[in-house]
Amino acid sequence: MASITIFGSGNMGGAIADIANAGSNEVQVLGKEDAAAAVTGDIVVLAVPYGEVAGIVEARRDQFSGKVVVDITNPVNQETFDGLDVPADSSAAAVIADALPDAKVVKAFNTTFGGTLAAKEVGPLPTTVLIAGDDADAKSSVADFIEAGGLKAIDAGSLKRARELEALGFLQITLAAGEKVSWNGGFGVVR
Amino acid sequence: MASITIFGSGNMGGAIADIANAGSNEVQVLGKEDAAAAVTGDIVVLAVPYGEVAGIVEARRDQFSGKVVVDITNPVNQETFDGLDVPADSSAAAVIADALPDAKVVKAFNTTFGGTLAAKEVGPLPTTVLIAGDDADAKSSVADFIEAGGLKAIDAGSLKRARELEALGFLQITLAAGEKVSWNGGFGVVR
Repeated sequence: MASITIFGSGNMGGAIADIANAGSNEVQVLGKEDAAAAVTGDIVVLAVPYGEVAGIVEARRDQFSGKVVVDITNPVNQETFDGLDVPADSSAAAVIADALPDAKVVKAFNTTFGGTLAAKEVGPLPTTVLIAGDDADAKSSVADFIEAGGLKAIDAGSLKRARELEALGFLQITLAAGEKVSWNGGFGVVR
Repeated sequence: MASITIFGSGNMGGAIADIANAGSNEVQVLGKEDAAAAVTGDIVVLAVPYGEVAGIVEARRDQFSGKVVVDITNPVNQETFDGLDVPADSSAAAVIADALPDAKVVKAFNTTFGGTLAAKEVGPLPTTVLIAGDDADAKSSVADFIEAGGLKAIDAGSLKRARELEALGFLQITLAAGEKVSWNGGFGVVR
């Protein structure tokens, strides 16, 4: 059991809250109206669009110290829809980790659509969350709450792999937006 | 029916030759010993490691003029195994397209292991080849021979998307090398 704070209650935040609740964790959900509320979780999930992350990080930097901070974003450029709003050799997760040197930043949930998180399956496959980060204990704590919630989790390596996870997430979004796959489909993981 | 030349007869080249033959195409396979042989195919598949592509391109540039050239590589740095040997905002396919301005370069087959090409399935899913390129007819001709060979194909967009396909391919290789997935598994596509 873990204590988990989720920023955002949209499609993704709601699905992640359901997973956290299914695992009998202590769950706090913070919306925009909760700017004054203290963070209670040891794991903090930033389930907001990439453009809103910097403001939360700036306002909460001290509160995030020592915590596991989970970045779920796909920083797709919303004007061109043809690239990402982070340096090509880096990732949103790396940018966030630079801004939060005292937190343990983990990339997760960006390669799974909200629909497949809620359904716990991608077509015939169990939904598998790919996790990247530089702190093994932080990754384990995130994998534990995902698996307790009924999904699969795979450690995809160091935080450097967030570049590839975000490329995969972006590609998957373009495929769904182009109606090549459904928003309840996409990339499934076969072990 | 198409005429297809495949450079390389390894794991990937062999699997792609089987797909091409299953579709009753005219298939030519060229190994290193065939340096003097003329290319007969309208579609040329470079099924060799990335490090060997430049030499073939240099030697065959004139012969590749007007042809569909399929890049299947994942240019993983073989020393660090922690990144790619192409600029982070680009791709092997883009580098090859720059070197072959008179060819129609298509990215394909780099997100499917040889084992899943041969088996025609990734776990419970049909093997799906993702294709990127800037010439719609070229992409169609590649999709046609893939589908005639019993696999699925999806147009994943412009050649710019090769960056994301190569990130996916690299990630998938690291997962298999790390025994997180099998070399007969990896990423399957759910429509």
